[in-house]
Amino acid sequence: MVSERLKKQIEFIVEIDKVKQIARQNYVTGGERRETDAEHSWHLAVMALLLAEYASGPADMIKTLKMVLIHDLVEIDAGDTYCFDEQAVKTQKKREETAANRIFGLLPADQARDFRAVWEEFEAGLTMEARLAAALDRLQPLLLHYHTAGRSWREHGITSSKVKERNRLTRELSPQICELVEDVIERAVQKGYLAE
Amino acid sequence: MVSERLKKQIEFIVEIDKVKQIARQNYVTGGERRETDAEHSWHLAVMALLLAEYASGPADMIKTLKMVLIHDLVEIDAGDTYCFDEQAVKTQKKREETAANRIFGLLPADQARDFRAVWEEFEAGLTMEARLAAALDRLQPLLLHYHTAGRSWREHGITSSKVKERNRLTRELSPQICELVEDVIERAVQKGYLAE
Ligand SMILES: [Ca+2]
Repeated sequence: MVSERLKKQIEFIVEIDKVKQIARQNYVTGGERRETDAEHSWHLAVMALLLAEYASGPADMIKTLKMVLIHDLVEIDAGDTYCFDEQAVKTQKKREETAANRIFGLLPADQARDFRAVWEEFEAGLTMEARLAAALDRLQPLLLHYHTAGRSWREHGITSSKVKERNRLTRELSPQICELVEDVIERAVQKGYLAE
Repeated sequence: MVSERLKKQIEFIVEIDKVKQIARQNYVTGGERRETDAEHSWHLAVMALLLAEYASGPADMIKTLKMVLIHDLVEIDAGDTYCFDEQAVKTQKKREETAANRIFGLLPADQARDFRAVWEEFEAGLTMEARLAAALDRLQPLLLHYHTAGRSWREHGITSSKVKERNRLTRELSPQICELVEDVIERAVQKGYLAE
């Protein structure tokens, strides 16, 4: 007999397959389609493994990976909130809280608590792990925007000052990553991918 | 100035975006399209966090996550080899070795060595981490095949004995997961998703 615990875990695992149907604003390189939340989270996890060395202090790698892997699960119910859509950003917190209750609630109680706590820590953005995850969550789309000739930026009329503001938190986390971000933004403006 | 080390890391990070364009055989739930390698790897990572407790011995979680996150990167050059395509399986090893040389070779030497070693450990399939990763790599598509009414199985005329054979390694890893796998296969046959 398959245990109740394992049944709950499998139910959750099947449920979260839905993040593969949530399209983000940025395109994947090659440029034919938008990236899905699952692809984005995968990319962040590999980036965390490679770039954690730039964080200004030690980050617990398992917690960081957990954060980036599950940070977008709430979008199954709450949808992807485009960071430059000011109306949607206003209701985002409430919509995501309700989603977290339902989605993490599918898990056995101990794992539900653990994932929920990690997600809340990510949202609060105070710990080293949360700051690293947040910086990667900004850097990753920046790289894809740049390598798809700014297609999504141009579609939405985004300016370099908006992108700089969005990547502001990189500065305290890591001077090297911050320099990289500024370099990418500058080249994007020069190439006409991003408005001044 | 962005360091040579960081430039290499970013080059790798942009290069691996290509796994988002590699389609697997199985469909995502909802059923409109095939899953990408990046989505598959993401799903395995979340499953590893939740299901490692069923492994017959302790597995290093960071190593397991690393394995599942990067195990398919070689497919950027070597393509996805469908596990039931016997011709393709024959040349798979050689094609994937060449791909590993190029792709991991983009990284700074220390990280290239680390990722390469983890990938080789996954391929060898001997350690607890590799066995856990391999079992999840079988279980995940099984769940998606089941929850898309066996569409891909039916397209390829796959039988339950082939699926059982493919999930054989689950038995030594975990009796509970093995029971789950047998239960899913049995229900799939009953529902006509999978030929006897
Ligand atoms: Ca594969």
